[in-house]
Amino acid sequence: MARAHNFSAGPAVLPLSVVEQLQEALPEFRDTRLGLMELSHRSAAFGEVIASARERLKRLLAVPEGYEVLFLQGGASLQFYMSALNLTAPGEAADYVLTGSWTKKALKEAARACDAKAIWDGGETGWKRVPRPGEYAPRDEAVYVYYTSNNTIFGTRWAEPPAVGEHHLVCDASSDICWGPMDVARHDVIFAGAQKNLGPSGVTAVILSPWAVERSRTAGQSRPGGLPSMLDYGLMVDKGSMFNTPNTFGVFALERVLAWLEDLGGLAVMAERNREKAALLYDELDRTDFWRPHAERDSRSLMNVTWRCADPELEPVFVKEADAAGLVALKGHRSVGGLRASIYNACPRESVEALVDFMRDFERRHG
Amino acid sequence: MARAHNFSAGPAVLPLSVVEQLQEALPEFRDTRLGLMELSHRSAAFGEVIASARERLKRLLAVPEGYEVLFLQGGASLQFYMSALNLTAPGEAADYVLTGSWTKKALKEAARACDAKAIWDGGETGWKRVPRPGEYAPRDEAVYVYYTSNNTIFGTRWAEPPAVGEHHLVCDASSDICWGPMDVARHDVIFAGAQKNLGPSGVTAVILSPWAVERSRTAGQSRPGGLPSMLDYGLMVDKGSMFNTPNTFGVFALERVLAWLEDLGGLAVMAERNREKAALLYDELDRTDFWRPHAERDSRSLMNVTWRCADPELEPVFVKEADAAGLVALKGHRSVGGLRASIYNACPRESVEALVDFMRDFERRHG
Repeated sequence: MARAHNFSAGPAVLPLSVVEQLQEALPEFRDTRLGLMELSHRSAAFGEVIASARERLKRLLAVPEGYEVLFLQGGASLQFYMSALNLTAPGEAADYVLTGSWTKKALKEAARACDAKAIWDGGETGWKRVPRPGEYAPRDEAVYVYYTSNNTIFGTRWAEPPAVGEHHLVCDASSDICWGPMDVARHDVIFAGAQKNLGPSGVTAVILSPWAVERSRTAGQSRPGGLPSMLDYGLMVDKGSMFNTPNTFGVFALERVLAWLEDLGGLAVMAERNREKAALLYDELDRTDFWRPHAERDSRSLMNVTWRCADPELEPVFVKEADAAGLVALKGHRSVGGLRASIYNACPRESVEALVDFMRDFERRHG
Repeated sequence: MARAHNFSAGPAVLPLSVVEQLQEALPEFRDTRLGLMELSHRSAAFGEVIASARERLKRLLAVPEGYEVLFLQGGASLQFYMSALNLTAPGEAADYVLTGSWTKKALKEAARACDAKAIWDGGETGWKRVPRPGEYAPRDEAVYVYYTSNNTIFGTRWAEPPAVGEHHLVCDASSDICWGPMDVARHDVIFAGAQKNLGPSGVTAVILSPWAVERSRTAGQSRPGGLPSMLDYGLMVDKGSMFNTPNTFGVFALERVLAWLEDLGGLAVMAERNREKAALLYDELDRTDFWRPHAERDSRSLMNVTWRCADPELEPVFVKEADAAGLVALKGHRSVGGLRASIYNACPRESVEALVDFMRDFERRHG
C-alpha cells in the first residue's frame, strides 16, 4: 500500500513532511516529555506553537499592523453567523454576492442576525463565473459586502476582490487562503476553515481589521444579552484565541503547514506553482471536446478544477478507473455531479501530471 | 528523553496504545491509501469511524434507546450557551447549582438566552463540596436544572446526580465522563469536551434525550431568527454531526480511546481502577498534617485531586522538584493555586504510585 494521488476537496492532502513531523510529535513533543495532544494549552510549549502560527500567517499574508489573527473552532459555517453577529447591530444591512452554495449558506445564517441581502445571484448564470464589475451594486447602507474568494463546489474564483468602493469587505477564503498573495488590507474579516489549504479540519483561521474588532465591541455588544462569549470576536482577541481550550493538535498541524510554506519561499513561489499546476489541467480540458470544463475562463479556480465528460455516462467510469490507478477523490460534489480535481497547495505537481496522463489515456480508450 | 508521568488537567494523558495507533494512521489510514487527516469526512472510511464512535459511547454508557449522540466543536464553553438556547424559549427559567468556576461560566452564558438563576452557590463554603440534599430547591417553573458532575479546578464531584424530582437535568461531564457508569436516563443533556477523559481537544461529545431534541425543534426555534445552524441540536442530529466538516482527526482519536475502554472491560472495570488510584492519593493526603486536602470527604473527586501544603511556601518547591523527578503538571489551577493531580482514566496506576512515593520522600526532606 502507498499514498495515492489525493484530489480530495477537504479534508485534503497535506505535505508528507508535515505528516511526519506530526507523527514524531505525538508521543513526545519537543523537550516537554509529554505528547503533543497531551499537554496543557496553557503550557509554555503550546504558547510558543500558537504564537508561531499567528506570526507565520501574518508574515505570509503580509497582514497589516493592527490586524488580529485568531484560531477558532466551528469551521466557516460558524463564521457565517458569527461575522454578521459581530459586525452589525440588529436591523443593519449587509450585502452578499452569491457565487455558490457556500455564499448561499452564509447569507442564510447572516439573515438571522441582520438585514442580509443578495446583491448578485450566480445561480442565474449556472454558477459558471463570478460577477463582472457593474453587475452588482452594494446598498449605500450596507455595513459590509460579503464574498467567497474561491468556490470549492463549482470551481470558480474571484481573480480580484469585488470592487465595492468604500464598503467594508468580508471574505470566506476557506478554499484558497494562502494559495498566493492576498490584499489583506482591502478586507476587514477573512476567515478560512483549515482543512483545505492550511491543515486539518477543526481549526478556523480568522483575520480581523481594527474596524472589525471595534464593531464587535460596539455594534455586536448592542444585541440583547450581549454576544455569547464563544461567538465574540473582541473577547477572542483579548484572550489570544484561548478563552477555552483550542484544538491544540490542529493548531500545531496548521503551524507546521505555515512553516512549510515559509520554507519553500512564501506565497509568491506558491502562487507560481499553483498557476503551473492549474494550467496543466486546464490545457488538457481545453485540448479536446471529450472534456467539458465548467467554469468560464476568467473565473477559473486554481484550487478546484471542475468539468464534465461530453458523454456524462463516462463520469462514473472515469472515477472508478482513476481510483484503481491511484488517483483518488475525483468525483464532483454530491450536489452537482461531474468531475473535480482539488489541487490545493500541498497537492504536488506530480499528482497533476499523473492525472493529465491518465486523462489522455482515458480518452484514447473511451473516446 | 521519555514520557513523563503526566498529571495535566487537560489536554491530558492518553493511552500510549492510542497514541501509537494515531501515529500509524497519519500517513495511511487503513486501506484508503490516504492519510487519516487527509480524507473527506463524507468518505465511507470516515463514516465508519464516526458511526463507531457513536456506537461505542452508547454501549459504554448504556445510553437509552432514542437518545442521540453528537460530536461537535467549540468545547463545553459553547455548550454553556447552546444548551440554554436549545432547551428554552426566551424568558423561560433554568436553574444552576454552582459548584465551581465552570458552572459560573455556564450560568453567565445561559443568562444571555433565558432566565437563568443560581439556586445554590458553593462559593459560600469555599468550593469545598457539592450541596447536600435539601440545600437547594429548583423553581417550579425551571425548564431544567444544570450541574457540573466533576469540578476540575476545585477537585470536587457529585457522587450522585442532584435530586431534583421531576425536573429535566443538564450535566457538564467534561472532566469525568466515562470515569465509570452513569445514569444517562436520568439526564436530558450531557456534554463533555473530549480533552480530559475522551481524547484530544477540539471535539465535544453531546448526549441528548428525545425531550431535548424535541425542545430544540420547538422552544429553540421560537427564537427570533431561529437557531443558527451551527447551534441547532435538532439540525446536528438530522445531519449526524456532519452539517459541516467535523474535527476528523479528533473524532478518530476519541473513537480509539473508546475502543481502549471497551477492550479493558468497560466502565465498571474503569471505575474500580479509578477508585483505587484515587484512594492511593487520598490515603497519602490523610496520612499526615503535612498535606491539606481541599475537598470535603464526601465530595472528593476521583479525577482531580487538589491539596495544599501546610506550609504554602513549599508548593512551588514541590512542583519544581516533582517536575525534575518526571512528575509533570502538578501545579494547581492558576485561579486557586496549591497542588493538583489530574488522574483521569488514561493516567496509569504506576503514575499515581510514583507520585505517592515522591510525596513521602518530599515530606521526609522538607517536613
